[in-house]
Amino acid sequence: MAPNLDGYFAEVDKLSAHFIDRLKKAVAIPSVSAEAARRPDVVRMGEFLATELKNLGATVELRPLGKQPDQPALDLPPVVLARYGNDKAKRTVLVYGHYDVQPAEKSDGWATEPFELTVAEDGRMLGRGSTDDKGPVLGWLNAIEAHQRAGIDFPVNLLMCFEGMEEYGSEGLDDLIAAEGKKFFADADAVCISDNYWLGTEKPCLTYGLRGCNYYSVEVSGPAADLHSGVFGGTAQEPMTDLVRILASLVDTGGKIQIPGIAEQVAPVTADEESLYDGISFTMETLHESLGATTTIFEDKKSTLMARWRYPSLSVHGIEGAYSAPGAKTVIPAKVIGKFSIRTVPNMEIERTNEAVYKYVQDVFAKLGSKNTMKVYAQHTGKWWVASPNHWNFRAASKAVERVWNVKPDFTREGGSIPVTLSFEQATGKNVLLLPMGSSTDGAHSINEKLDKRNYIEGIKLLGTYLHHVAEEPQV
Amino acid sequence: MAPNLDGYFAEVDKLSAHFIDRLKKAVAIPSVSAEAARRPDVVRMGEFLATELKNLGATVELRPLGKQPDQPALDLPPVVLARYGNDKAKRTVLVYGHYDVQPAEKSDGWATEPFELTVAEDGRMLGRGSTDDKGPVLGWLNAIEAHQRAGIDFPVNLLMCFEGMEEYGSEGLDDLIAAEGKKFFADADAVCISDNYWLGTEKPCLTYGLRGCNYYSVEVSGPAADLHSGVFGGTAQEPMTDLVRILASLVDTGGKIQIPGIAEQVAPVTADEESLYDGISFTMETLHESLGATTTIFEDKKSTLMARWRYPSLSVHGIEGAYSAPGAKTVIPAKVIGKFSIRTVPNMEIERTNEAVYKYVQDVFAKLGSKNTMKVYAQHTGKWWVASPNHWNFRAASKAVERVWNVKPDFTREGGSIPVTLSFEQATGKNVLLLPMGSSTDGAHSINEKLDKRNYIEGIKLLGTYLHHVAEEPQV
Repeated sequence: MAPNLDGYFAEVDKLSAHFIDRLKKAVAIPSVSAEAARRPDVVRMGEFLATELKNLGATVELRPLGKQPDQPALDLPPVVLARYGNDKAKRTVLVYGHYDVQPAEKSDGWATEPFELTVAEDGRMLGRGSTDDKGPVLGWLNAIEAHQRAGIDFPVNLLMCFEGMEEYGSEGLDDLIAAEGKKFFADADAVCISDNYWLGTEKPCLTYGLRGCNYYSVEVSGPAADLHSGVFGGTAQEPMTDLVRILASLVDTGGKIQIPGIAEQVAPVTADEESLYDGISFTMETLHESLGATTTIFEDKKSTLMARWRYPSLSVHGIEGAYSAPGAKTVIPAKVIGKFSIRTVPNMEIERTNEAVYKYVQDVFAKLGSKNTMKVYAQHTGKWWVASPNHWNFRAASKAVERVWNVKPDFTREGGSIPVTLSFEQATGKNVLLLPMGSSTDGAHSINEKLDKRNYIEGIKLLGTYLHHVAEEPQV
Repeated sequence: MAPNLDGYFAEVDKLSAHFIDRLKKAVAIPSVSAEAARRPDVVRMGEFLATELKNLGATVELRPLGKQPDQPALDLPPVVLARYGNDKAKRTVLVYGHYDVQPAEKSDGWATEPFELTVAEDGRMLGRGSTDDKGPVLGWLNAIEAHQRAGIDFPVNLLMCFEGMEEYGSEGLDDLIAAEGKKFFADADAVCISDNYWLGTEKPCLTYGLRGCNYYSVEVSGPAADLHSGVFGGTAQEPMTDLVRILASLVDTGGKIQIPGIAEQVAPVTADEESLYDGISFTMETLHESLGATTTIFEDKKSTLMARWRYPSLSVHGIEGAYSAPGAKTVIPAKVIGKFSIRTVPNMEIERTNEAVYKYVQDVFAKLGSKNTMKVYAQHTGKWWVASPNHWNFRAASKAVERVWNVKPDFTREGGSIPVTLSFEQATGKNVLLLPMGSSTDGAHSINEKLDKRNYIEGIKLLGTYLHHVAEEPQV
């Protein structure tokens, strides 16, 4: 039976100015994790969250994570671990978010002060962290408060994990998640992460898949030091010549990966999946707008979405050690390192993919007949993630979207990686749902980052509604 | 008839401590042209030369060159234009050198203070500028002084052109040379430049050819801004994919240029030339030592020298706009600029070569079927230079080498460019000779730059002897 949420919705609307004020306070704390000088602000932001949560009656721990590996004198900001409710009769939902933000300076081109939440007449609320990820994090707190003020029983136990280093590689978090999987997170029946975005601007989505990423380096070295191309050109075998030939062999202009053993691992498209793409709220025009160009590989939506979500792709990122400045320099670089990565999808295996890459690159190099030395290796690898969108966790979220937004959500995957998703799935063994609050135009890492007021307020309703459906949704 | 030079040689030997002291004074002036803060030192070095020349009885002008184009507040150092002797019955030789030096700091790894000439027991005279090019420049002054002190008539009129910006692109010099070709340089019967090095360490050489250099950029652009490879990988055509394919098509590991219309322009090897290489004092071991590796294209000396001197070569230098730092970044660069250059040789024409490059790159790009935009253009071009080694100017120098060093010199070409050579040839219409003083191990642009005492003192004898042979050598 659908829960009656009219009282909750009315309370959220009534408290909307208060909730915007809470977001304003949070945006005012410049919790930039990438800048060591801002570390006290990051810590202050964690403490702000802890205080707010305690005021709402949650039990809170600020868990230290030790020193930052690349800056051994610097303490990592603490993880906020909180619990609201401990009723064995209720389901327990673990939610994740982050309270740190990307760097921002007015001089980068912001229309407003980045650390002052500025609400425009059209409802855009500009400010660094508004959508990524302070709005969604506060969404959970606001949902608790609206229940309390409306006198409605909170439908679940809520476990919260809010970190302060997401924009700097989530330093230290994986270890914590793994260690707490059977401890602090042990009661979780499902996981919900609100840290991504709708595919467009009008239709909400639920995200059930992400691609993985294997990042490779190819080093070619020859002479002991850089050479002058006048003196040595024509007499020495040049590492750059070999490297560009290797990089050119990896993928074609149409995006087709030339490495045998990759396509063979990709899960076949099922009839079920085939039917899924047409309904998705996405147009090629939106993509052209994002690109600022019409240089897409495919002309149609379905091929494009499949290429982004469910097929691997290979990108050549650059070359280290070669001449990269403007102007002209007649250097023969002695050692050059090409960088490329493969976005991976079900059912690709990391090791099998690595071996296919290594063998192919070695074969291409061998055919060059070069006297130079070549090494190929993975800099880092990360697995893809796909959850079951038929799980009760997704069904609850889908019903909540329909209730709040009057539309069935798109079930989407994403081309990028959110490594924490997989970490939570592996540590808890529970279904993980990505439930975005903001829209595709929010500009998370750009200047003029914003969260629309509508997305924030309706988003608070959505999070609360989701929890009520979690409480009611049958196991199967 | 060979001139009697015993008195001159004895005088040079007698004055050797004085000549080394003159070089010590010159090295002590840190005339680094690339550093604006050192500009007063560069000017002071020009004034030092002017004073020394006046003391020797030369007429001297310090010719201003205006402001430095890339630093409009900074005056270029003056060119020292000097004349010693004005006897219409004598031949007139124009000599060029430069009094500025490469940057140097003790902390770069120098064994000694770079701006203190330090004479080691084995005769190495360490110091920035010792061999490049203060030693050779002072060589001309020392030759004048030794003639005066020995009471020997100076055999020619000497025109001198010493610049202070050679290590920073010879800013302003080309215009001056062109303007003075029929004025200050009008009397010149031949030109001699001492600013290069022997091929090895034991046998002097005379250099009669240099390769030219055409430097190209290939720009490929697609999206309006850099993209995230997770979000866009597989959906957008990537400029880097196209660029590495273009760069890979230019040259192979064996150094063979793949562009039609280049090899066709190369002058055929004559029987005369064929016979020339075997006698040259050069070994593959020396090349391996310079490379710090055995990754040479050819296994034999003759093919190697021909590849360096008389065949074109193509080097890929790097890529601007792509990711070039250490580590891993999952970027799809929006616009990338590949840089490559072709070393040119007789009878390649600049325009014909450019057109062959443009057409080839355009054809390769067209075959990719890419929606991206591609531009290819020359950043700069410079013609090769080859003089007649049978000219009396070279015959005079060859006889001087035999007299001083008791060995016939190697007649060499070089793979690199010394653009001023061609400028003097074009402005004067006269034969230009490159007459090196230092040896291949002097490390002109490196730490621990040195000039061997033997090369300096015998070099002074060589320059003087050369002038005597210039005076006597018949026209044909």
